[in-house]
Amino acid sequence: MEMKLGENITVTLFGESHGPAVGALIDGFPAGEILDLDKLMEDMAMRKPGSGLASRRKESDKVEIMSGVYEGKTTGMPILLLIKNEDAKSKDYSFLPNQPRPGHVDHLIDLKTEGAADLRGGGSFSARLTAGLVAAGSLCRDLIPKEWVVEATIGALGGKEGDEGVALAEEARKNRDSLGSRVDLVIKGLPVGLGEPWFDGIEPVLARALMAIPAARAVEFGRGVKAGLMRGSQHNDSWQKDMTLPEGSDGALGGMASGADLNVKITFKPPSGISLPQKTFNRSTNMMDELVIKGRHDPVIAPRARPVVEAVTRLVLADLAVKGGYIDG
Amino acid sequence: MEMKLGENITVTLFGESHGPAVGALIDGFPAGEILDLDKLMEDMAMRKPGSGLASRRKESDKVEIMSGVYEGKTTGMPILLLIKNEDAKSKDYSFLPNQPRPGHVDHLIDLKTEGAADLRGGGSFSARLTAGLVAAGSLCRDLIPKEWVVEATIGALGGKEGDEGVALAEEARKNRDSLGSRVDLVIKGLPVGLGEPWFDGIEPVLARALMAIPAARAVEFGRGVKAGLMRGSQHNDSWQKDMTLPEGSDGALGGMASGADLNVKITFKPPSGISLPQKTFNRSTNMMDELVIKGRHDPVIAPRARPVVEAVTRLVLADLAVKGGYIDG
Amino acid sequence: MEMKLGENITVTLFGESHGPAVGALIDGFPAGEILDLDKLMEDMAMRKPGSGLASRRKESDKVEIMSGVYEGKTTGMPILLLIKNEDAKSKDYSFLPNQPRPGHVDHLIDLKTEGAADLRGGGSFSARLTAGLVAAGSLCRDLIPKEWVVEATIGALGGKEGDEGVALAEEARKNRDSLGSRVDLVIKGLPVGLGEPWFDGIEPVLARALMAIPAARAVEFGRGVKAGLMRGSQHNDSWQKDMTLPEGSDGALGGMASGADLNVKITFKPPSGISLPQKTFNRSTNMMDELVIKGRHDPVIAPRARPVVEAVTRLVLADLAVKGGYIDG
Amino acid sequence: MEMKLGENITVTLFGESHGPAVGALIDGFPAGEILDLDKLMEDMAMRKPGSGLASRRKESDKVEIMSGVYEGKTTGMPILLLIKNEDAKSKDYSFLPNQPRPGHVDHLIDLKTEGAADLRGGGSFSARLTAGLVAAGSLCRDLIPKEWVVEATIGALGGKEGDEGVALAEEARKNRDSLGSRVDLVIKGLPVGLGEPWFDGIEPVLARALMAIPAARAVEFGRGVKAGLMRGSQHNDSWQKDMTLPEGSDGALGGMASGADLNVKITFKPPSGISLPQKTFNRSTNMMDELVIKGRHDPVIAPRARPVVEAVTRLVLADLAVKGGYIDG
Repeated sequence: MEMKLGENITVTLFGESHGPAVGALIDGFPAGEILDLDKLMEDMAMRKPGSGLASRRKESDKVEIMSGVYEGKTTGMPILLLIKNEDAKSKDYSFLPNQPRPGHVDHLIDLKTEGAADLRGGGSFSARLTAGLVAAGSLCRDLIPKEWVVEATIGALGGKEGDEGVALAEEARKNRDSLGSRVDLVIKGLPVGLGEPWFDGIEPVLARALMAIPAARAVEFGRGVKAGLMRGSQHNDSWQKDMTLPEGSDGALGGMASGADLNVKITFKPPSGISLPQKTFNRSTNMMDELVIKGRHDPVIAPRARPVVEAVTRLVLADLAVKGGYIDG
Repeated sequence: MEMKLGENITVTLFGESHGPAVGALIDGFPAGEILDLDKLMEDMAMRKPGSGLASRRKESDKVEIMSGVYEGKTTGMPILLLIKNEDAKSKDYSFLPNQPRPGHVDHLIDLKTEGAADLRGGGSFSARLTAGLVAAGSLCRDLIPKEWVVEATIGALGGKEGDEGVALAEEARKNRDSLGSRVDLVIKGLPVGLGEPWFDGIEPVLARALMAIPAARAVEFGRGVKAGLMRGSQHNDSWQKDMTLPEGSDGALGGMASGADLNVKITFKPPSGISLPQKTFNRSTNMMDELVIKGRHDPVIAPRARPVVEAVTRLVLADLAVKGGYIDG
Repeated sequence: MEMKLGENITVTLFGESHGPAVGALIDGFPAGEILDLDKLMEDMAMRKPGSGLASRRKESDKVEIMSGVYEGKTTGMPILLLIKNEDAKSKDYSFLPNQPRPGHVDHLIDLKTEGAADLRGGGSFSARLTAGLVAAGSLCRDLIPKEWVVEATIGALGGKEGDEGVALAEEARKNRDSLGSRVDLVIKGLPVGLGEPWFDGIEPVLARALMAIPAARAVEFGRGVKAGLMRGSQHNDSWQKDMTLPEGSDGALGGMASGADLNVKITFKPPSGISLPQKTFNRSTNMMDELVIKGRHDPVIAPRARPVVEAVTRLVLADLAVKGGYIDG
Repeated sequence: MEMKLGENITVTLFGESHGPAVGALIDGFPAGEILDLDKLMEDMAMRKPGSGLASRRKESDKVEIMSGVYEGKTTGMPILLLIKNEDAKSKDYSFLPNQPRPGHVDHLIDLKTEGAADLRGGGSFSARLTAGLVAAGSLCRDLIPKEWVVEATIGALGGKEGDEGVALAEEARKNRDSLGSRVDLVIKGLPVGLGEPWFDGIEPVLARALMAIPAARAVEFGRGVKAGLMRGSQHNDSWQKDMTLPEGSDGALGGMASGADLNVKITFKPPSGISLPQKTFNRSTNMMDELVIKGRHDPVIAPRARPVVEAVTRLVLADLAVKGGYIDG
């Protein structure tokens, strides 16, 4: 099974949550780019478990660069980013494969691989693999032009913004439950025309990349689901002098950047890993048994998904930029 | 620029709205499949302009099969589907490239190709190219197992269901305006485990394919944007006896089919091509001039997008099926 | 089954020798290139059957451009090149599938597609499909810089050069037999560094493309098989002033153009289609029966392979050029 | 720059000769395959430097499996094979980049990456990266059916077989020179029809993979360059009872296995790294200066290329096998 994103600059994820390591192999990254290792560590820290509204798993998330970088610069050759697993608690998963967790892939991986996969902690489907994504996305920060601004913020926690949402999330954690959330992404400063027709348009490729983030359930562009309620005369954005567009216009048309800000909303389901007792089928007893999951999980996705959203967006933009000749491949 | 969908069974679109032809080249289609030409014609008729809530352009949309089929069966070689353009009215587009239409790609294509593209009717970005998609998707009908049911219905027109929505759409047409809409897709009977990890999961690849349909603005899976308001204890679907899931459960987990129905909602913006006069920038006069578009357009997308949604879904499923070994490649 | 060459500029062949048409779909061709239709017709004429040391099949080989070209220039969108079949004599192949021809793919296609393929004239494996390759390659003539000279010549017919070889070939035709041959290719003026590491090096990708030409049996680069007899001190080419290389040096090192001319030799087997009676197995009689093939075939490959060698070389170079940023994609 | 082989089972090489590590990432490897680690070590030992007709570099070539394997079986997820570099002697390369070695890529990499690449020991172009290839190929041993026999032998050293060739090679080493060579590959027991049409035929994909092995200069299939001297009546192989072919027949027709043994010859140039003093251009002195290379090199390629030839062949066959449905992907 392939875990690859991109066509010109490609990122292939590897690793299992409780195996020796996770990471990413980046192919097609241009030569001569200076790596900002401080920024890389900062980005990793954003995603890292162990604090605030996040799982208590302790990982240093140190990124070892095993190839493709020489004297602080990329060589143009494949870049291997290796992140060792240090704090996996595998005995927490002794209920597998007999009693797969509700809302998790356990049962599906087991079935698909006829029992061969490493199910502990979700194996290769674990959100732990986003560590490789964030590291790879961080390398793209300086590759894409400074004017292309990528900013993901917490849009909502349980449907509420700001402190109100935080309170809901903390309450969910206290109740050993979890909460749905939304990340809002805005991309500014893209050159008009970036993107490709049809299936490689900005929205299609972003939609694919964003929907691959664990727990993503919906992705909206521009006015999103609200566009379904509008009339053309309202929704149409008229071209202005110098062929610019008014604020609030669609940031992409036909898959290509229009010059307006590109707004994207990504909805995440509440994390499936809750420590509330759940009744779910047990294949060994052949009954609906109570399951209490001891794993260390996040009560809400948005805070830790935020850097992942930025990372995949940068990867997608870097890939489109090379494809369209905006930066040298 | 590439217009390709799929990895094992691939579909490459070609053609321009006002060029000699549009169509699709299918690669990787298995040998020995009997073609149902009646069904193909029926599917084409569903998408065809010229009636009801649709553009008045008259096209016979006859599909010529130029290769890959012999004595009614596929040969396993590339299949070329050719659909000639017959009723293109190119003089309707004499305002291009000077006064690009609001909400359309005209200006972006022009810029991206430095004036080389055929802009008439949207060129290669025209919804006319969905003819090739529908034809290609139709060929997958018998390729994927009968139990895999793909059904797209009109979810809403202007936010309203049923007759109420139709009335709104007719009113929009009368007012020379257009209306937003939604298509609801349900996929039933997929084998548990169909789909791949991460970027080739069912949701990511479907999201990409669906967002490539012209005017798509949002795609939601399962409980969609509502999942953002829920708690884990509500959202989690417990495994039942024989590892089945209750009704209303997520149809995919971690990118793989879970055994439950997979529900998808696709929101379409109101068509940008309205015949109401619009003020938009004119590069030849260097002023905001009124533009009246004489082209023949649809007042609402959902009715004609419905067969396109089904077509890309079948293509995506056929591709995943070959990849996962569910059908022979 | 896929019939695709290239990664950035891709060419997908389609068609069957005795079906409605053959041709090529080109994806990724840059916008704004002016097409030289006279040159295209000239190139097609070089490959065309019907004269000299060639099959007597009469085909006008008119190339219809169905998409991707507008007002004489490429639009950047997929280019569909369609070449209708006009003079297929299908009854010549009534011995198939029972008595497959020696040295031909008939039996293998039949087996692989479980009888579904169109075997007449070799179906999709026919050298007739090189018509699409030559047309596609011709479009790359003006795309790659003028200084990149691609020249294929007849290296040998039956091991002999010049008139001596021609005499052998004519004798073979008279005897209803056929003759082996060689095409010599020289590529001059490539920019130093063109090509990619390892599997996408100039030699690997050229080797793949050239070995795909029907009847190719060997490909040699630089000093070819003779390099196996040499010492390093003889074979090594020393860098000269301005980092140039002496004449006769290897034209590529590590997959990248070195600045020296790149010499390639391609050996073709004698055409398998001979009209001499041959004893070969007949599945209907279950015996070794005599077979007399009435099809119209070439007595020697090199003359007609020459333009095909040039075409695939141009396609490979154009693809590497886009990949390496030497020309805009 | 991409260093990837294959389409269904893909191998991406990474690493630099004097960087922290080399290795391979394998994608698409089926789940549930038991790894034969003893065989892996054996295969690595065959390729390893440090003995006989090989470079004196000492590397343990221990393969660390960082992902995709659990409890001795493949999980179906990407497999990361990591081989640390231990005995790199980087000061041996202090003459770079000023005085690039004759017959090496030093100058070309330097130019292509504008000085960013790690040139020491050839960087990512070093034959050291074949360690990853051999490891990856070893994993395919049990994946492809036992009946598919892949055997590479030393065909010739300096044009001579057996002891005579060995004597020539030893003499070359004594003289601080090197020698050309040939590896003969025979593939037996392939299922009739394995392979794809045109560019993905067995010969095209094998030719690409084999020509990517450092120092390969020619690849011949079947009767190779000798086919150029033959007549069709001699070369054609008649089908026998049960549709078998006589010994000595072509092992592939039209890119597909014919049932006969497939014979391939690969010619390697004499290694460019010789310790004889060579006069070559020095950019710092702007003169032709003498260069004495102190690196530890092989006097002849064939002995160490042999396991690499087998490895890439197994990778190619495994990939075609998955593609054609001969083994589950």
